[in-house]
Amino acid sequence: MTTQNCVFIATSVDGFIARKDGSVDWLNAANEVVTPGEDCGYGEFISAVDALVMGRHSYETVLGFGGWPYGNTPVIVLSRNPIVFPKHLPDIVTHSEEAPLALSQRLAAGGMTRLYIDGGLTIQRFLAAGLIDELIITQIPILLGEGIPLFGALLADVHLEHQSTQAYPFGFVQTKYKVLKSDVS
Amino acid sequence: MTTQNCVFIATSVDGFIARKDGSVDWLNAANEVVTPGEDCGYGEFISAVDALVMGRHSYETVLGFGGWPYGNTPVIVLSRNPIVFPKHLPDIVTHSEEAPLALSQRLAAGGMTRLYIDGGLTIQRFLAAGLIDELIITQIPILLGEGIPLFGALLADVHLEHQSTQAYPFGFVQTKYKVLKSDVS
Repeated sequence: MTTQNCVFIATSVDGFIARKDGSVDWLNAANEVVTPGEDCGYGEFISAVDALVMGRHSYETVLGFGGWPYGNTPVIVLSRNPIVFPKHLPDIVTHSEEAPLALSQRLAAGGMTRLYIDGGLTIQRFLAAGLIDELIITQIPILLGEGIPLFGALLADVHLEHQSTQAYPFGFVQTKYKVLKSDVS
Repeated sequence: MTTQNCVFIATSVDGFIARKDGSVDWLNAANEVVTPGEDCGYGEFISAVDALVMGRHSYETVLGFGGWPYGNTPVIVLSRNPIVFPKHLPDIVTHSEEAPLALSQRLAAGGMTRLYIDGGLTIQRFLAAGLIDELIITQIPILLGEGIPLFGALLADVHLEHQSTQAYPFGFVQTKYKVLKSDVS
């Protein structure tokens, strides 16, 4: 048994989630024109997950913003190296070296059903392992030319099933796909 | 004076227009589930352009399909090398070595107002030169993992203005963007 694993992420129209140095200045600038109070479904999405799984880079980026935005949601930070968590983080923030399948199975055995998978490399690893069930991608109307891509190499084509698309008045386009299981997983 | 230059192209959700070897088998497979008679606006789009500009790779791919799908629409094939056109092609198919700006200016001087820019590298060259005005991108619900990307490097961010998005019942999502001019052009 594995958890259901979902992605909720913004990309440029050319598919980057951040600049090469990790900067999301372009996303912050785009967010300035978002209708006040509009969260593009993020609140509803995160309230429906049992835990968030992210890579070390994403963790360090979030930490760098100051504060901790995930409240009481358990967060698992994937890293091959030990992590010393700052004392202000809640103890539901934990470290794991597990591979995607082992992690998903362990959390499912512990009663979790739905995970939020975040960060470029982590998403790519879960996708390549056939362990992403749902993709919610919000395209921001900009081309960056280079950066950290959302997607990476795969062992085989991954077929998606379109669920819904919403275009927001400030130009974001959010599309929700179900990932159809291939033979690879 | 330059022409208005528009792109109308399909990509995988991870941004590829073809596999590494140029194959569009995945696109052909996707097209098999398209509602009969539905062309996703292609007919209307191509009827509104004065000429089509493509690179040599795209030209050779199209030629390889047999026949010639562009009827009486002038087609300019960009290549640094000479091209010997087969006799069955209409004489409105011509070769040019011009850079995007020179070509666009020459065609504008000849009375053309709107060009269809096609093929990965050609689109990238026009975009990098600040010479694309409109992007109509149709996302096909598949991840390929690798292939020929639609977008490439840019000298600076390119800001887009969202015009419209249409999700088709067979899962294609078509978004139309106006390209906002940056300082680079």
